[in-house]
Amino acid sequence: MFKEMLAGVREVSPLTHCITNYVTINDCANILLACGASPIMADDVGEVEEITSLSKGLAINIGKLDQRTIPAMLAAGKRANALGHPVLLDPVGAGSSTLRTRTALDLLANIRFTVIRGNISEIKVLASGHGNPRGVDADLADQVTDANLEQAVSFVKDFARKSGAVIAMTGAIDIVTDGDTAYCIRNGDPMMRKVTGTGCQLSAMTAAYLAANPAFPLRAAAAAVCAMGVCGEIAGERLPEGGGSATYRIYLIDAIDHLTPEELERRAKYEVR
Amino acid sequence: MFKEMLAGVREVSPLTHCITNYVTINDCANILLACGASPIMADDVGEVEEITSLSKGLAINIGKLDQRTIPAMLAAGKRANALGHPVLLDPVGAGSSTLRTRTALDLLANIRFTVIRGNISEIKVLASGHGNPRGVDADLADQVTDANLEQAVSFVKDFARKSGAVIAMTGAIDIVTDGDTAYCIRNGDPMMRKVTGTGCQLSAMTAAYLAANPAFPLRAAAAAVCAMGVCGEIAGERLPEGGGSATYRIYLIDAIDHLTPEELERRAKYEVR
Amino acid sequence: MFKEMLAGVREVSPLTHCITNYVTINDCANILLACGASPIMADDVGEVEEITSLSKGLAINIGKLDQRTIPAMLAAGKRANALGHPVLLDPVGAGSSTLRTRTALDLLANIRFTVIRGNISEIKVLASGHGNPRGVDADLADQVTDANLEQAVSFVKDFARKSGAVIAMTGAIDIVTDGDTAYCIRNGDPMMRKVTGTGCQLSAMTAAYLAANPAFPLRAAAAAVCAMGVCGEIAGERLPEGGGSATYRIYLIDAIDHLTPEELERRAKYEVR
Repeated sequence: MFKEMLAGVREVSPLTHCITNYVTINDCANILLACGASPIMADDVGEVEEITSLSKGLAINIGKLDQRTIPAMLAAGKRANALGHPVLLDPVGAGSSTLRTRTALDLLANIRFTVIRGNISEIKVLASGHGNPRGVDADLADQVTDANLEQAVSFVKDFARKSGAVIAMTGAIDIVTDGDTAYCIRNGDPMMRKVTGTGCQLSAMTAAYLAANPAFPLRAAAAAVCAMGVCGEIAGERLPEGGGSATYRIYLIDAIDHLTPEELERRAKYEVR
Repeated sequence: MFKEMLAGVREVSPLTHCITNYVTINDCANILLACGASPIMADDVGEVEEITSLSKGLAINIGKLDQRTIPAMLAAGKRANALGHPVLLDPVGAGSSTLRTRTALDLLANIRFTVIRGNISEIKVLASGHGNPRGVDADLADQVTDANLEQAVSFVKDFARKSGAVIAMTGAIDIVTDGDTAYCIRNGDPMMRKVTGTGCQLSAMTAAYLAANPAFPLRAAAAAVCAMGVCGEIAGERLPEGGGSATYRIYLIDAIDHLTPEELERRAKYEVR
Repeated sequence: MFKEMLAGVREVSPLTHCITNYVTINDCANILLACGASPIMADDVGEVEEITSLSKGLAINIGKLDQRTIPAMLAAGKRANALGHPVLLDPVGAGSSTLRTRTALDLLANIRFTVIRGNISEIKVLASGHGNPRGVDADLADQVTDANLEQAVSFVKDFARKSGAVIAMTGAIDIVTDGDTAYCIRNGDPMMRKVTGTGCQLSAMTAAYLAANPAFPLRAAAAAVCAMGVCGEIAGERLPEGGGSATYRIYLIDAIDHLTPEELERRAKYEVR
């Protein structure tokens, strides 16, 4: 199931182009190397089309957005679409400013995304289509729990069908779906929330999984989400007395570096709905 | 005294908006999470007013200055002033170029800062009002020591009264004053100087302390400065044989993550003048 | 031989100006502090000439290139030339986009570089003079090995003579030459390739070695390359069970912090050709 996806990343070592925010750009490059891929970070409109043509996949992340790079995101995304490369969107902070929301919606209108990965509030903003999360499935709380899981799955499936993308909505329970099949994933560790950019890192890594396994976008995305959660657990298990969030951050990437396909398969905790 | 300040950060978990340099932006986000706050990094003029409106405090840091973000600093600072949010200035490198000095002075002229945190040469540049540190208290050396402490306290108090801000002038001995009361703080570890951006990290964390304790700017700033110094000591104590500056950097944030209000209170070393 | 070069860095603690990419900018600043130098990161055209005037050396790195900073690179490089400061070029990714190739060639045409440090494909692109690596010493494979070492040395010496710069072409075997003498260096560890930006870090550190030892550019560059390789080995030896690429990255900078001139001299593995 998932082990072939990771084995694919290790075998292909896909060059993965990231247009991503500067808060976590170093961690994104390092997690790509750790999982077996090869990173290339480029966000100048004067080179992104060439860079993305050399690459096997593209991740677009709108955290700490800079208006200078929006045309680069659009140009790279369109080129990747034209070449048939997988493209991932991480709509960081959509809903927290008009600029982020509008940018996320513009990207969604102009680029065919293979995967969209975000938290529940970001996904709600995109699903609303007008940037106002209120009124979108108003009964769905901001946290996916066992109590609202069925409702959440149905909401995410709807958006997957509407957008044509695999949606990876991550949180305490992650939901990854193509609109038909949904993986509900229960790996992870609460310490992941004490490190900035674990979401950004997951997005970059997911783009690499997609790039190495272009025929299986749903399974590749679900495998990447599981891998991140499993490695979050491993990092927590390894954390010594006195170790805090910064050591945890290091151990998370160490775990990604050491994760074997078999361990991913064995430790993955999910159900299909 | 100080313990309530940290307890406040943990309780409120204030969203803290940073407009900050890209050298240390990741560390600033991670220290905010470690101390119990929530970071949001945004520096595009198209969104900073909305972002700062959502937040409870703002830190402006002019390190590795980019002219693109100066209007964003001004816009965010004015909005934060209008909303009554605490605003901190870290005038990194003021005095080392005309652009940095002029930007620091422009910010000072247009925004009411709750706290200004810098080293002695940066504070001297701001206090001179024209960017020339020479002639400003020319007898005050570049290092605060027991020999010149009284003179240093008097200089910083003067600038606090003149600027209307709490001044946190950090170095071997830190001085934090509102112009009336001065805390002279003797926590810290020489290894902190071997890590880039411990000053930037302290500024981001101070903004979070202010955001959680808006009624007590002097005490909140002094508590943050003590917390950084105490954690610098804890990181040094934990450093193993063979551990160097990079491990120290990790342990510093680990210590911020683990610091309890009681430990802060117990380990704080300061006198009031 | 090499030990005096490191001792010089520790004694002078040269302020080293970096115009460098944001993926690895934090690591570059931290490695400069670790080796004993003092970093200053500035890339706005409005201040780079003043900043480079204050500094003792300059490193220009074109990774994750932003068109905004190209004029800053040119202005700072020319000023450093006028002042007689050493200037290093790291042509990251030259050949992977027209923008990067053209920028690297423009910099080469307008600035006298003391050292150019890159991998074999980047150096080939620059040596071709027109950005097309094909046809440049077409028999030289993309990896320097014992089988093609003589040919590689001859290629790099030619480019050193033509460019007037010391060339540091790094890989499994590093070649550092001024066109006359070539150091072939065999220090290093395969794990270095699992960390983003070890090349960028080496470039920043090399600029500091040059800045502290301006009369000995060849020896300073070779010493820096050896120091990085030796510390790569030390980090590998220290890596515990379960430690991965992120721990390795931390230990690499720890090793730079602890490296003594004597240890560098003793562990350096090179031959002169």
